[in-house]
Amino acid sequence: MARPSLRSRRRIITPPLLVSQLETPAAVVDLDRLAANLDRMASYCAVHGLALRPHVKTHKSPRIAAEQLRRGAIGLTCATPRELEVMSDACDDLLLAYPLVGAARIRRVMALRRTVRLTVALDSLEALEALAAAADEASREIGVYVEIDVGMHRVGVASAERAIAVARRTRAMPPLQYRGIAFYPGHVREPIAQQDASLARLRGDLAAFTGALADAGLAPGVVSGGSTPAAWRMHEVAGVTEVRPGTYVYNDRATAALGACAWDDCALAVLATVVSTSVPGQAVVDAGTKALGREPLPEGPGAGFACVMDRPDVVVTRMSEEHGILDLSRTSWRPRIGDTIRLVPNHVCVVVHLNDTIHGLRGEVVETSWPVTARGREAAPEGAA
Amino acid sequence: MARPSLRSRRRIITPPLLVSQLETPAAVVDLDRLAANLDRMASYCAVHGLALRPHVKTHKSPRIAAEQLRRGAIGLTCATPRELEVMSDACDDLLLAYPLVGAARIRRVMALRRTVRLTVALDSLEALEALAAAADEASREIGVYVEIDVGMHRVGVASAERAIAVARRTRAMPPLQYRGIAFYPGHVREPIAQQDASLARLRGDLAAFTGALADAGLAPGVVSGGSTPAAWRMHEVAGVTEVRPGTYVYNDRATAALGACAWDDCALAVLATVVSTSVPGQAVVDAGTKALGREPLPEGPGAGFACVMDRPDVVVTRMSEEHGILDLSRTSWRPRIGDTIRLVPNHVCVVVHLNDTIHGLRGEVVETSWPVTARGREAAPEGAA
Repeated sequence: MARPSLRSRRRIITPPLLVSQLETPAAVVDLDRLAANLDRMASYCAVHGLALRPHVKTHKSPRIAAEQLRRGAIGLTCATPRELEVMSDACDDLLLAYPLVGAARIRRVMALRRTVRLTVALDSLEALEALAAAADEASREIGVYVEIDVGMHRVGVASAERAIAVARRTRAMPPLQYRGIAFYPGHVREPIAQQDASLARLRGDLAAFTGALADAGLAPGVVSGGSTPAAWRMHEVAGVTEVRPGTYVYNDRATAALGACAWDDCALAVLATVVSTSVPGQAVVDAGTKALGREPLPEGPGAGFACVMDRPDVVVTRMSEEHGILDLSRTSWRPRIGDTIRLVPNHVCVVVHLNDTIHGLRGEVVETSWPVTARGREAAPEGAA
Repeated sequence: MARPSLRSRRRIITPPLLVSQLETPAAVVDLDRLAANLDRMASYCAVHGLALRPHVKTHKSPRIAAEQLRRGAIGLTCATPRELEVMSDACDDLLLAYPLVGAARIRRVMALRRTVRLTVALDSLEALEALAAAADEASREIGVYVEIDVGMHRVGVASAERAIAVARRTRAMPPLQYRGIAFYPGHVREPIAQQDASLARLRGDLAAFTGALADAGLAPGVVSGGSTPAAWRMHEVAGVTEVRPGTYVYNDRATAALGACAWDDCALAVLATVVSTSVPGQAVVDAGTKALGREPLPEGPGAGFACVMDRPDVVVTRMSEEHGILDLSRTSWRPRIGDTIRLVPNHVCVVVHLNDTIHGLRGEVVETSWPVTARGREAAPEGAA
């Protein structure tokens, strides 16, 4: 081995922070995987002429948002007032993909920087009237997407008649601007190779809505869809102009299980330490519900809540708030007390929401750390972004 | 009705904040219920001569901790370094009921104010040796509880021989002080009226451990148990000297389902707004996984994730990150868009961990709000407590 040069010796004197020095549990992101994930979705959308308006709920970070915008995203999608406030420092084109209901919430959203071009997705005349009154009072133009239900059965108007009624009423209230329709294909949860039937239904439902709207003189300027599991086949759904995936930046165990990413595309892991091996057949790590969430896989709760990154067959099968129980019954691997492992969570968005800081890794080095600025509900402190 | 006096008229001019003015989702606590819950456990422990060392993981607040100490708690139980740091401003006697493993974690714990009498529960010689080395280096006396497994199968030594080995080794390392044993009866999850068989097994297992330790000249000074569901019958388990319940301050749907509290003892609710009623048979509220967690009831996932406080038959059966779906199929109640409701979560500890602020209500008035100071992982900012 070559003797280290003076320069590399100096580096040894002020060594970089290594992942092994982080206190656990901690959320760590492989920066190379993150960049590749960002590139892949940007490239897919560019190739297929889809506008990319990523949902920030996954990362809640203006730094990652800036990376998405730099790669061609036309704007951002948010769910909460805090997400809007934080992202308004990074972007001038924001969609609130959440019904804007409640006086306090409306007030906060109306107070956003006026240079922000704001669009709100909604599914009721009640929400629309309240928005119109607030927009009028603020003398502020607000765009509207009419949210339609195409099978998720969560929010969204169920019929073309309702969509027409909401769109028409939007047109009648000048501070509001009818900009299109939005849907969320969260019900398309088959592995991506098996989505043919779901996508055929989606195409049909969407055509019924857009056709009826067009006949009523209300052809939508934007048809906004999205979700990571369905994102890679959205170009097969005629009429869609915009997608709003979120999870793709980090991916997770559920996304990999659906084939919507490769296993090696999982960029975020929860770093955990083995704290007890006293009960035979298991090892206890310091990541439980308060670090991993308790989200199911498509296969159901039997599949556990997270798995070891480089041993996907070793699964967290039970949890308490601060304990994760690794089932060792089907492996000869025996971790020791003090060992650190990386766990890939089932649902990464929930994990990010449980953290204040994310650590970015280049190999074993903690190259950078960033705050989850849009986590929480309260107004962000000045300059938080 | 009497005409309001000038004084009360003045009050009307600067009105108090009402719960209806809070932005949702928000965690709200009925202050009268909270006080009654604190009183009830303090009184139970006093009557039965049990030392109360409540676990702070539920409230993560030095304010609530102070109320527990004022009512006679002898100290506090913590799970994380941040909980220890925050609580060290409120209390001089802290138990870390979590294996102290990992260099970064040990360093943080050793840096606690030296006036704090610290005890650590552990279940391995590995953790013990590392603790002894750190205590020696810091010239700091640290108490040790040997953690034993009496049926939870999470952490804890499984045999009296192991307990003796750990206790004996503790005695051999002077900066450490063998203070007793700890167990967590989290497996006692029957309704409290049906715990007879579990408690009989617990008595037997505990007697085997304490008897063997006594025979080895290692009789435990403290036998520390706890957990809210089993707390009300701990006086029936001979030998237990200390309990560590956490959940009892707020209670929750799971605790009520076990009969370990009355329904009206549930002090914390998630205030939520109905944001959509467009899909028939359901109403969508703005509290999803990121506000409620996804914790099961003892009855299993079919029982849903939360219910309406004054309509316990109306349940959140599905969730997305920011959406909770109230199933209205078995009620004639039809909430309207904009209505606010209070949801009792299945597991309150996880909900508190999702919030930065808790609002204390006296009737409909927000009398006080307090930060969840020990939420998160990082060192608390100066003066945070």
